Amino acid sequence: MGKIKSRESQGRYAYPNLDLIIHERARLSMMTSLVAHPKGLRFSDLKRLCNLTDGNLSRHLQMLASENLIAITKSYEDNRPQTWCRLTTEGKRRYVRYLSVIEQIVQDSASRNNAGDVLLAGS
Amino acid sequence: MGKIKSRESQGRYAYPNLDLIIHERARLSMMTSLVAHPKGLRFSDLKRLCNLTDGNLSRHLQMLASENLIAITKSYEDNRPQTWCRLTTEGKRRYVRYLSVIEQIVQDSASRNNAGDVLLAGS
Repeated sequence: MGKIKSRESQGRYAYPNLDLIIHERARLSMMTSLVAHPKGLRFSDLKRLCNLTDGNLSRHLQMLASENLIAITKSYEDNRPQTWCRLTTEGKRRYVRYLSVIEQIVQDSASRNNAGDVLLAGS
Repeated sequence: MGKIKSRESQGRYAYPNLDLIIHERARLSMMTSLVAHPKGLRFSDLKRLCNLTDGNLSRHLQMLASENLIAITKSYEDNRPQTWCRLTTEGKRRYVRYLSVIEQIVQDSASRNNAGDVLLAGS
């Protein structure tokens, strides 16, 4: 009973490539917003779309910028300073790699070794 | 430039339903292993498949059990005690819900407002 499949090697479900910088919920939220808005977003719009406080957004933006995943620029609109955020090329690349690990997890959860047990039963 | 879509409401990318108990990497690894092995796994096999230390595995198992996501049972094999872990019905339900949020994030990252910007370009 419950014997693991012989082909399943050490660390089969360890996902060492899961990028923890992106995986954290607030940063995943911010990165996904920016992927969906390739021209960038104002700080105020990003804050609204991700439901984050000024402090939290600033803190996570700084971390993402220090990893070179996003670029932050300042500009003036109607004489008022605006902060703009956009994904860098490196940010896009790491997000795509993150998605590939997530997709692996989704696939792994679907590969059951017992056809009688259906994950979605009753859902 | 970069104006957000008018239909995008507050918190559009906030994902408040992302289950942080499951989202944490070690627990996501453990839950996915157990989803893929519906009859359960021995502590030693789970440890090996997830590449976790005894201490980390124990700590996260206790948290998952306290949330009623997994059940832990003891048995004897060849006179030696064995610890078995399996998902509960509630664990399956919450994992399925977690996957649905993850799938929403994957979809959101694909819904770009500018056809000229291709996320996967160069990857």
